[in-house]
Amino acid sequence: MTELNAIARLLKPRSVAVIGASADAAKTAGRPVAYLRKHGFTGEIYPVNPRVDAIGGLACYPDIASIPGTPDVGIVLLGAERAHQAVRELAAKGTAAAIVLASGYTETGEEGARRQQQLIEAAGGMRILGPNTIGLVNLSDNIVLSASGALEMEHFPVGGIGVVSQSGGILGALLSRAAARGIGLSKLISTSNEVDLDLADFVDHLADDADTKVIALYVESVRNPEKFRAAALKAARAGKPVVAFKIGRSEAGAKAAVSHTGALAGADRMYDALFRQVGVIRAQTFGDLLDIPVALATGRKLRGKRVAILTSTGGAGTLVSDDLGMQGFETPAPDAATAQALRALQSGDHAVLDRNPIDVTLAGLQPDLLRGAIDILLESPSYDALAIIVGSSSLAMPELMAGAIQDCLPRSDKPVIAYVSPHAPEVAALLTQRGVPAFAAAESCTSALAAMLNGGRWQEPKPSSAPAAAVPIDDLPAGSLDEAQAKQLFTRFGVPCAREMVVATPAEAEAAARELGGRVVLKILSAEITHKSDVGGVAVNLSAETVGARLQAMAAEVESKAGVGPRRFLVQEMVGGGTELILGMHRDPLGTAILLGMGGITAELLKDTTMRLLPLQGGLSREDALSMARELKTWPLLDGFRGRPKADVKALVDAIVAFSDMAARLGERLLEAEINPVFVLPEGQGVRAADGVVVLAG
Amino acid sequence: MTELNAIARLLKPRSVAVIGASADAAKTAGRPVAYLRKHGFTGEIYPVNPRVDAIGGLACYPDIASIPGTPDVGIVLLGAERAHQAVRELAAKGTAAAIVLASGYTETGEEGARRQQQLIEAAGGMRILGPNTIGLVNLSDNIVLSASGALEMEHFPVGGIGVVSQSGGILGALLSRAAARGIGLSKLISTSNEVDLDLADFVDHLADDADTKVIALYVESVRNPEKFRAAALKAARAGKPVVAFKIGRSEAGAKAAVSHTGALAGADRMYDALFRQVGVIRAQTFGDLLDIPVALATGRKLRGKRVAILTSTGGAGTLVSDDLGMQGFETPAPDAATAQALRALQSGDHAVLDRNPIDVTLAGLQPDLLRGAIDILLESPSYDALAIIVGSSSLAMPELMAGAIQDCLPRSDKPVIAYVSPHAPEVAALLTQRGVPAFAAAESCTSALAAMLNGGRWQEPKPSSAPAAAVPIDDLPAGSLDEAQAKQLFTRFGVPCAREMVVATPAEAEAAARELGGRVVLKILSAEITHKSDVGGVAVNLSAETVGARLQAMAAEVESKAGVGPRRFLVQEMVGGGTELILGMHRDPLGTAILLGMGGITAELLKDTTMRLLPLQGGLSREDALSMARELKTWPLLDGFRGRPKADVKALVDAIVAFSDMAARLGERLLEAEINPVFVLPEGQGVRAADGVVVLAG
Repeated sequence: MTELNAIARLLKPRSVAVIGASADAAKTAGRPVAYLRKHGFTGEIYPVNPRVDAIGGLACYPDIASIPGTPDVGIVLLGAERAHQAVRELAAKGTAAAIVLASGYTETGEEGARRQQQLIEAAGGMRILGPNTIGLVNLSDNIVLSASGALEMEHFPVGGIGVVSQSGGILGALLSRAAARGIGLSKLISTSNEVDLDLADFVDHLADDADTKVIALYVESVRNPEKFRAAALKAARAGKPVVAFKIGRSEAGAKAAVSHTGALAGADRMYDALFRQVGVIRAQTFGDLLDIPVALATGRKLRGKRVAILTSTGGAGTLVSDDLGMQGFETPAPDAATAQALRALQSGDHAVLDRNPIDVTLAGLQPDLLRGAIDILLESPSYDALAIIVGSSSLAMPELMAGAIQDCLPRSDKPVIAYVSPHAPEVAALLTQRGVPAFAAAESCTSALAAMLNGGRWQEPKPSSAPAAAVPIDDLPAGSLDEAQAKQLFTRFGVPCAREMVVATPAEAEAAARELGGRVVLKILSAEITHKSDVGGVAVNLSAETVGARLQAMAAEVESKAGVGPRRFLVQEMVGGGTELILGMHRDPLGTAILLGMGGITAELLKDTTMRLLPLQGGLSREDALSMARELKTWPLLDGFRGRPKADVKALVDAIVAFSDMAARLGERLLEAEINPVFVLPEGQGVRAADGVVVLAG
Repeated sequence: MTELNAIARLLKPRSVAVIGASADAAKTAGRPVAYLRKHGFTGEIYPVNPRVDAIGGLACYPDIASIPGTPDVGIVLLGAERAHQAVRELAAKGTAAAIVLASGYTETGEEGARRQQQLIEAAGGMRILGPNTIGLVNLSDNIVLSASGALEMEHFPVGGIGVVSQSGGILGALLSRAAARGIGLSKLISTSNEVDLDLADFVDHLADDADTKVIALYVESVRNPEKFRAAALKAARAGKPVVAFKIGRSEAGAKAAVSHTGALAGADRMYDALFRQVGVIRAQTFGDLLDIPVALATGRKLRGKRVAILTSTGGAGTLVSDDLGMQGFETPAPDAATAQALRALQSGDHAVLDRNPIDVTLAGLQPDLLRGAIDILLESPSYDALAIIVGSSSLAMPELMAGAIQDCLPRSDKPVIAYVSPHAPEVAALLTQRGVPAFAAAESCTSALAAMLNGGRWQEPKPSSAPAAAVPIDDLPAGSLDEAQAKQLFTRFGVPCAREMVVATPAEAEAAARELGGRVVLKILSAEITHKSDVGGVAVNLSAETVGARLQAMAAEVESKAGVGPRRFLVQEMVGGGTELILGMHRDPLGTAILLGMGGITAELLKDTTMRLLPLQGGLSREDALSMARELKTWPLLDGFRGRPKADVKALVDAIVAFSDMAARLGERLLEAEINPVFVLPEGQGVRAADGVVVLAG
């Protein structure tokens, strides 16, 4: 049996064993059987309980061995102390998957972790959902495999949104909130402790599920990033948007021992990078996790930023327009032909049609007028989407209004959304069910449209750069490299470095300065002291005449501050006229990231950085490297801002790719790497790594 | 009759005339009389309509003159063509205020503007609310003075939040949303076109209103900033928080002809500055406009950032904790004594009490346990506030749960809020009515607590600095000053400027450089060319030896680029070793603002700036000036970041105060003023204005 089949059988079983079923439907252990029957499950149900003969007319089995045939799924309602026994017996039966609801595993400490290991061993080749899970609901097929009171509903709105949550409680909240808003779901799965089946397994499965158009994820932690990336890419290629809300946003950033990159990277920013690279739309709020999918599930296409706002009430249209404007959307006034057509709809010429929100008086109460106005705005070349404001005057006849809007949908594939201004959840639900996602907050309208716009822009990642396989790496030492060694490593991979010479005495320093020509920088050279400035170990703007004396003074100062006298120094050409950046590598459980940031003290305080995860093979593509540079808020500094010379962006792209190749080629051997600063010189003059850190594994 | 009395009579009239009343309660013109009676208005109602004898048993008058006695309020239901006649007759009767509902005034164009003027003239000394208003509702006294269908409710929840809205449609939305959430309001007023009574009038009135604890404002535009500032300060001093949601956030910033300050200031940032200075809490979303007031209206005190989250469900507590963390709140685990007390509550020791969210199993279903846990957390010295997570398990007995929470409230004045995880609006409303503001979004919890924290920190503005009355200003020319003149003006007011000399020839330049000593800057001196760098009119790092030749080259380059040869030049000492800032003045309909920003090209791109409006008299206080500097994201650059020398912040504060005094003293004569850059040198070395722009009115 392939894995896919096991997941398919789990989600749509022909038979379900319920281990520890109770005859009392009011008890938790009584719910699974009751829910299965209430929602019309047509397969076999095998309750297992040695103390009961029958449950609601179904034969009850004393143990798992007595079940006739092989159940597709076993729901294990036993406590953590006994669940593994049931799992072992289900596995022996050839059951495809067990759902283990008990808590008391890793989430409670060491003893729980031991139990969890026991559970894994008991399962053998059988798949497990959980433990500590609320179970799952297959809404497309009316199958409830759960014991949660949150599922105590008569009817679930069915639709195209598949939800996978790492929290069970959240799953219930999403279901009840979706139901209240008329938002239809296809599957709801709580993965919780993920001893086996995880987020990525279900993303992979839902990418193939005909009933699922959009996948919504509630993420606590991506436990298997490689599998997740592959599954998300599969969904993206299948044209199924994945929307993820990730908690843990407020956790402190990762600490790095030597480089700045770790502090700048931060655990949450790694998720940003991960999601973006595989086309996952990140929900910024928990509310967005329904607001965005409901809009995407319409399948309508947003091709630009111009939104028509149709209203019959004053302030609310402005509220929506203002919020859209804050996120870069435009709400232009109707063009002349559109205004003319709108005017022709109305008997008089009272309506003011030189503005947007477009106020069509009484439109909410006259379905023909409403239909006409919607058709005109959807046909207008001035608009990419339509937002309809539902005011209190429209509430008198919601069916008529919703029907009029629905009539217009097939004549255009532009997005149509609604904002419901008064408290009228039933009207919003009606509109949503009719194919017009309706929202009670302007921010929701904006989030939904922004996701439609950005989601539509996802592009297949470009192929990685060459893996630099020819570069020799076997001779590298372990531990922290000193600055000169670090730059030699960068140079091997093709990152240009500032010219420099290692010296030990004032005379050597003077000779080096003459050799390099021009102004020079003097630095102590030490693998131990990485923050050289802090101990007085850096001096700039020196000449051959001054460098020798400065070396002696520096040696004394460093000795007094660091407690150890430097033996070696670096004399480096002084790079001028360029823009300072930081280029670093950050290793994280999610993968290895390349970080690019604007350098210098001001930019450091303002944290102007961007990140990319390395592909599973090789380094970054040139396209990725260029887009990183362009994402910096201070990109204009590289792009000829205010008459500055344009920077050598091509050389910067080369350097980013080369640095990423180094990170890919060294793999786990590379613990930290950072070039800080790298100077980007004017066009045609290249880049120069001026300082760097490398730490290699032992 | 004083103004205050007229507004008091408008909000709580003893008698109301309804001009144009209809006998048909289903018609708009039939609503005011119907609403007054439905909600139990106990005063006199005088319907006026020549075609009807009686309305619902009330005598109907043929005209205003026939009304016996003087109505406190006249509701004018006539169209814009006739409304002014009714207003004139009401004024003649001695009516305190007329509410004019008709639209068709300035909002529709020129003809409307003419009508609006006519209305103002007709009113004479009588106050007007509107036109184009939805009217008002005095919930404290059950008086509805409106014809809006949005008020078609049987019962309004009464409470301590007074709402003033410049949009009528929004007022209806706020009322229906508040009612659905169990949020009690005191007064609801729509000011709309504000020909007379405006936002500030009602803020001023509500500051004295015993039924109002918090004032919520929906703002399109503050038309009378001075009155608004005075009213908001009055409310702040009365301990009544004012919360404002302002639209127009996405409008483009103001354009300034010469300086950068205007572009950096922006219309919306002016509102930020205005609100903050008078203690108004700005709601970032429309939702916040109810979420924040409902929390503030409890009157409970938030004294710190540590929040206990009590939950009986998994994911939702983490959701709230995560969002709080993003805004700087802390959710520490219980201290040992608190954990011990919580453990003693429960029979077993299954609960894991080393973390926050604090998961007290089954708390939602056992009122005694819930009460115990709440008391312990409110008493705990580890927490400043409590957020209770309501999961689906709590929904079975909402009354019991709400009652248990309510019981604990009197024993502490720390804030207690609730997050309702499943869709359960009726449970949320119940909690809110019992004094525990309940929210369906984690962001709402955070906004509410953040506003409680920041609102409690408002301080009375410090007295202005001296108005610099002694500085002579009568001799100043009109128009753009050249750089030398601008700096002379700054110097007059006490802003230290870089030393400089005006020269015309290479020989004079060389002499000036010798006189100044050290390295110098050479700039063209011209009142016309303000962007000197763009035409090659700035050269830095020159010596007495090089400045002469550079002057000749510069003259040629500027002539070729600008088409006119410069006659005069500035030789200026080159200021080094300092931090570059921009200090500017921006005039706006809201007032005159002083802007401080980090200088240099990187900071300019990242727009690291802050603003203060000048007080109504005089310049900024030293406290204001210092807090501006500390608000910059790059403040650490001035504060000894990474071993840099501390900057002379005292001298910077002096310069900001002096510059603001100049702006205050010159008043409307000063069109633009900007010092860019001003260098802040290390402690004890002062500041130097190195370039500047001044434009004076003719």
